[in-house]
Amino acid sequence: MTAPSLSLSGERLTATYDLTGTAKEARRMAEDICVEQTVEFPVDLIERTDIKEQILGEIQRIDSLESHRHRAAIGFPVETAGTELTQLLNVLFGNISLKPGIRMVSIDLPESMLRRYRGPRFGANGLRQLLGARKRPLLCTAVKPMGLENTELARIAYAFAKGGVDLIKDDHGLADQVFNRFEDRVKRLTEAVNRANQETGNRCRYIPNITAPVHEVSRRAALAREHGAGGLLVAPGLVGFDTMRHLADDDAIGLPILGHPALHGSFTVHPECGISPGVLFGVLYRLAGADAAIFPHYGGRFTFTPDECRDLAEQATHPMGAIRPIFPVPAGGMTLERVAEMRQFYGDDVILLIGGDLHRHGDTLIESAARFAEAMSQ
Amino acid sequence: MTAPSLSLSGERLTATYDLTGTAKEARRMAEDICVEQTVEFPVDLIERTDIKEQILGEIQRIDSLESHRHRAAIGFPVETAGTELTQLLNVLFGNISLKPGIRMVSIDLPESMLRRYRGPRFGANGLRQLLGARKRPLLCTAVKPMGLENTELARIAYAFAKGGVDLIKDDHGLADQVFNRFEDRVKRLTEAVNRANQETGNRCRYIPNITAPVHEVSRRAALAREHGAGGLLVAPGLVGFDTMRHLADDDAIGLPILGHPALHGSFTVHPECGISPGVLFGVLYRLAGADAAIFPHYGGRFTFTPDECRDLAEQATHPMGAIRPIFPVPAGGMTLERVAEMRQFYGDDVILLIGGDLHRHGDTLIESAARFAEAMSQ
Repeated sequence: MTAPSLSLSGERLTATYDLTGTAKEARRMAEDICVEQTVEFPVDLIERTDIKEQILGEIQRIDSLESHRHRAAIGFPVETAGTELTQLLNVLFGNISLKPGIRMVSIDLPESMLRRYRGPRFGANGLRQLLGARKRPLLCTAVKPMGLENTELARIAYAFAKGGVDLIKDDHGLADQVFNRFEDRVKRLTEAVNRANQETGNRCRYIPNITAPVHEVSRRAALAREHGAGGLLVAPGLVGFDTMRHLADDDAIGLPILGHPALHGSFTVHPECGISPGVLFGVLYRLAGADAAIFPHYGGRFTFTPDECRDLAEQATHPMGAIRPIFPVPAGGMTLERVAEMRQFYGDDVILLIGGDLHRHGDTLIESAARFAEAMSQ
Repeated sequence: MTAPSLSLSGERLTATYDLTGTAKEARRMAEDICVEQTVEFPVDLIERTDIKEQILGEIQRIDSLESHRHRAAIGFPVETAGTELTQLLNVLFGNISLKPGIRMVSIDLPESMLRRYRGPRFGANGLRQLLGARKRPLLCTAVKPMGLENTELARIAYAFAKGGVDLIKDDHGLADQVFNRFEDRVKRLTEAVNRANQETGNRCRYIPNITAPVHEVSRRAALAREHGAGGLLVAPGLVGFDTMRHLADDDAIGLPILGHPALHGSFTVHPECGISPGVLFGVLYRLAGADAAIFPHYGGRFTFTPDECRDLAEQATHPMGAIRPIFPVPAGGMTLERVAEMRQFYGDDVILLIGGDLHRHGDTLIESAARFAEAMSQ
């Protein structure tokens, strides 16, 4: 056997998991996480003491939440995750994603790791500056339904911009289909929103969906930039977390990013498995460069709980080294009637996203959007 | 309002979902999927009949499995998914991933869509040809534990190759860490396996893990190719499905791909949510270019059921246009003792992956690997 020769720093990142089981079972699950996420090798067969001491995860504490639910904080050597987002995700939740009864509920990365990530280019404050909107909640809506021609979508975008909406995003189902081409859409909708801005003096931004295959995603981001779009809609569940990170880091693009949860719901949908909405949308989307993260607010078409929404808003803004705080974007079947309540729930640091319901109010979309905007000045 | 003007083909792809709920609830859930995955817009507000007729999903059938479990087949217009893997995933499971009680259990893509995908470059038969191994199960193992120097990993790889293993992969935790650099690892392990091959006359292949950030993953694939590695280990959960597809399609690389399930477990871990292992590993990994898909066999460290494993093996090989059948790679705490049983379960068209347990048998790793290989000739 070779003599022990590892000399790692001893610095650790901490991940906290809620474990479903008795105290004894939770202890065993926590021990298992320490092994599964690092050496993935029978501990009794590891002959090198330096590997046991320096590579294996370590249980930092286990607390009892209920008789069958425990919370374990586990420290992993920072060097196992290295400097790459893909490997960080792997250490945090790679293999254990396959095991039931484990839900990741928080992450604490040391300063030395956070420095490796640029995070959101603008963050919540930067986005406020771009929009010239202090203190109040920002307003967002989507152009839809899929199937409308770009001329129709442009007409809708113009009306929303004219009425006072801050951010107008593509429906996430608009890609580059035969009935709705990407470049034509970007040109027309950017032009429509710019025209409204000239008339209103507002700074509304159009955010096209650039979620696309690897060979296309950078090209669409560049087209969005070239045609003067105001941001990028990206679904990291479809393109991969690191693709979003790459887009956010790209100085030649330099546009704010709105993260969309498509396909990522399976991480959050069962309360005993996966990753909590707070960690997924609040921390991981943020670390991977989203300036704002869309998620389903409670009481709409989806099933997040008020506690999950509150935790998400907290994790999206809590201190993370130099990584900027981002906007939570509660959505998913929200209505104008709920604006006051949502504002009370999230306070003013939020982007309110209302889609279909905006088509129900007022004689015109402009009026409807204006009612949405009015609700912010009350 | 604009006059109806869509003229789509009417051709549909079909996705089948298991829905948890009464017959009435299941019907409502199925109707909801038709809307959520396409227009994502209140149907009562859609004024255009062409959009209702041509864009919305349609329920093809609903069958009752149990009183609280129903199976719904839903057809989506092929044009909504277009020609891009990211948008196909979005239509199949984007937003509904956020809703509980929906599990996608099969996908049926028409020939016109399948033609857009190249799929696995080699597939099961191509991999057999590369390895010169007819009919018998292939043998795979992993070099680990993380923390060993590359010289040590090379020594282990040499022993496994010498003993008769077909495929030697990196542990998926080996990335490019300060204690284990990627390029040095690829050079040393390729050399070690080649040396063993010269001595045995075998065609063992070393498969480095190239899972990495966007800006690195192609570079590592190219380095693997340049240094003569025998394949690529890719975790699409970490890099994104389409990144794997892109690597598989790259003629300049041209190496077989072994798909690893890291981070993707959250899709399969709860039986009432997410995506069945058969669809995830058997169909989606295959469509995205993996020649073989690693997953946890039942009875090991994870909790897949025998039925799920059987369905996975079936979906990995069932007819999919010109998309090649691939190898299932049952793994996750498998032992030499289970080889006969696994062979009986899967038949001979399987890659058996045994990791840590190979270190428990025989006086040397060569002997241990030889026992693994022997089990195939019985």
